[in-house]
Amino acid sequence: MKINENFLKVESSYLFSTVAKKQREYQQAHPDKEVIRLSIGDVTQPLAGAVIEAMHKAVDEMGSAETFRGYPPEYGYDFIIEAVRKNDYEARGIDIKADEIFLSDGAKSDCGNIGDIFSTDNKVAICDPVYPVYLDTTVMAGRSGDKGEDGLYKNVIYMPCLRENNFMPQLPEETPDIIYLCFPNNPIGVAASKDELTKWVNYALKNNCVILYDSAYEAFITDYSPKSIYEIDGAKKCAIEFRSFSKTAGFTGMRCGYTVVPHELCFYGTELNALWARRQATKFNGVSYITQRAAEAVYSEEGKKQTGEIIAYYQRNARAIYDGLTAAGFTCFGAVNSPYVWLEVPAGMTSWEFFDDLLSKCQVVGTPGSGFGKSGEGYLRLTAFGNYEKTLEAIDRIKRVYGK
Amino acid sequence: MKINENFLKVESSYLFSTVAKKQREYQQAHPDKEVIRLSIGDVTQPLAGAVIEAMHKAVDEMGSAETFRGYPPEYGYDFIIEAVRKNDYEARGIDIKADEIFLSDGAKSDCGNIGDIFSTDNKVAICDPVYPVYLDTTVMAGRSGDKGEDGLYKNVIYMPCLRENNFMPQLPEETPDIIYLCFPNNPIGVAASKDELTKWVNYALKNNCVILYDSAYEAFITDYSPKSIYEIDGAKKCAIEFRSFSKTAGFTGMRCGYTVVPHELCFYGTELNALWARRQATKFNGVSYITQRAAEAVYSEEGKKQTGEIIAYYQRNARAIYDGLTAAGFTCFGAVNSPYVWLEVPAGMTSWEFFDDLLSKCQVVGTPGSGFGKSGEGYLRLTAFGNYEKTLEAIDRIKRVYGK
Repeated sequence: MKINENFLKVESSYLFSTVAKKQREYQQAHPDKEVIRLSIGDVTQPLAGAVIEAMHKAVDEMGSAETFRGYPPEYGYDFIIEAVRKNDYEARGIDIKADEIFLSDGAKSDCGNIGDIFSTDNKVAICDPVYPVYLDTTVMAGRSGDKGEDGLYKNVIYMPCLRENNFMPQLPEETPDIIYLCFPNNPIGVAASKDELTKWVNYALKNNCVILYDSAYEAFITDYSPKSIYEIDGAKKCAIEFRSFSKTAGFTGMRCGYTVVPHELCFYGTELNALWARRQATKFNGVSYITQRAAEAVYSEEGKKQTGEIIAYYQRNARAIYDGLTAAGFTCFGAVNSPYVWLEVPAGMTSWEFFDDLLSKCQVVGTPGSGFGKSGEGYLRLTAFGNYEKTLEAIDRIKRVYGK
Repeated sequence: MKINENFLKVESSYLFSTVAKKQREYQQAHPDKEVIRLSIGDVTQPLAGAVIEAMHKAVDEMGSAETFRGYPPEYGYDFIIEAVRKNDYEARGIDIKADEIFLSDGAKSDCGNIGDIFSTDNKVAICDPVYPVYLDTTVMAGRSGDKGEDGLYKNVIYMPCLRENNFMPQLPEETPDIIYLCFPNNPIGVAASKDELTKWVNYALKNNCVILYDSAYEAFITDYSPKSIYEIDGAKKCAIEFRSFSKTAGFTGMRCGYTVVPHELCFYGTELNALWARRQATKFNGVSYITQRAAEAVYSEEGKKQTGEIIAYYQRNARAIYDGLTAAGFTCFGAVNSPYVWLEVPAGMTSWEFFDDLLSKCQVVGTPGSGFGKSGEGYLRLTAFGNYEKTLEAIDRIKRVYGK
């Protein structure tokens, strides 16, 4: 019996686990201090009233023989698929068919599992810094090659997102087969314009690549940036899109997202839609009925209004962090179209050094930029998902210690 | 961009989808007839009152800022892990550590995803007939080789479960690396004795194999057969166990199960526990908080009593099918330790022919044994998960048409 040795090539500790461990250790050593956590991208505000109401109703249905529901359809009940199709696509002038939408237990699962349908020979391009799941699952699947002395995997095409390019990845010199893109991006918090995305779609079409487009943060867009890659002509022929209710409706504890695989997306005569349908039917068994009703309620009139208020709450946090820290002399990015603020750490410090400094001096937890990739070194990610008053308190503490 | 071509080697239509399609087509052609479905292994009875109550409470918690919960721990909240550890293992004299238990969205996902941690070079042994997920995921991962003229995959070791061996698989002549076992088995419905399982554990230990043990039906055991493979000495050194709340507590629409990976399970110095932990932390984001509270309630005093009554209800169905059809002249197996009855089809008919015959003459839907594998030919699986009165009606119809 042989194990999948690619697993041994992955960094053994998951970034967020390390952050949590450091926080825990600090708190244990200083039980009197109140630590404020602006690190993980986890929401804190309660679910919308319409969602709660829908769930109580669904729970009652599960308790009665007449209305009980067993195995859900593998790709989602019609009621939620239809709500997604109409609200997230049709309403924005995008024609997505019901059988192109696959409900799941979250974008993280889908972003990782999608690799199943591709050959392990494919060359993967990822942004740097980036949400760790894209790279880690690439490594685990055997697509990365070994790690070099420079800390980079030999077969991965890294696309640095640097300040000099407004944190936008540049078209790679070496042609990849699979391109992971996420906008508004994580961890930086910058959205891509229509022109920017058009450049990528055209590149993918010309070079026969597939774009894996993570749109988990679209609800935070405040300008004219596209919310879906399918707003770009030709994207249905080259892109799969991942969406999540986690950030849109505070569903991190609920586990629900969806993936769109258009029928037009075809390689050598095989529809990727058919492959993903097969993958999900075989290795997944659908989403809890109660969760599906909860997701449906997000699209109700009340649900839209209430979740909109929650997003606005977090947007106010983002703005407060950005403005507060900028006023304190920090250079900040993100925030406008995103719940993330990307902070330049003080000169002479590494990301982790500033993380430790911030924890010990201000009792504020961020996420070190270098944890998201080499080009994240020198930055720290702060998130807007906290409580407003706590967020203001954190900014205040940072100002007092580091303010100029 | 290349697709994973192994996907093209899988049977393009999933067994249960085909069954559902035939049923739908029949119903459309005969809208006046009442079709009774004894096919899919899906429960029909409502959730236990204790579970419903726990969910209402959890829903309310999600609606209040003080009690709201975001991302769940990737491997499950302590409260449910502890309930599993105590009730399913400690109470049966088995010492399983909390960090050896991984909560998930169901045994189907885990049975498929577990393949991620193994090399694709491993040789897989599966029973025949068998739950299709083991074989299909083996094919999709590239471990099966091509399909031969005989309909069998060249690199898979098939272990026929035939009447002459009491439907028990025999130790294979060629040594596998990975052995899928499920007891009480699906589709046949026969449990393995302690001696039988001891034979497998010893074989795996001697030959350096890993056993993937699916114990989804343990709640239906009525005799002294082991409910867990860890009741066998040495199993912690060679076996991973999958469990599900689907059949135990009617959770098919809820999506919850768990996988046990003991620390002692080690190959060439690597703990499989660490690999699975890494897999789940990277490609999975935990189970809905509400579902976890529902699962916890299954282990409460009330929950145990109520789910026990539901199991008893299905067991009565199983007995009725078995006794009724035996009295009608059919040869039946299973039922005693299982919600499944394995029926020999009338001489001269194939499984699918009898399926069609039964649908058109009795409006009863079963699942063709041949759909579970070559050695299932000549059998039909009936399930006890229906409504009692409807089940009796189905038996009656079968008796009237085929009774001797």
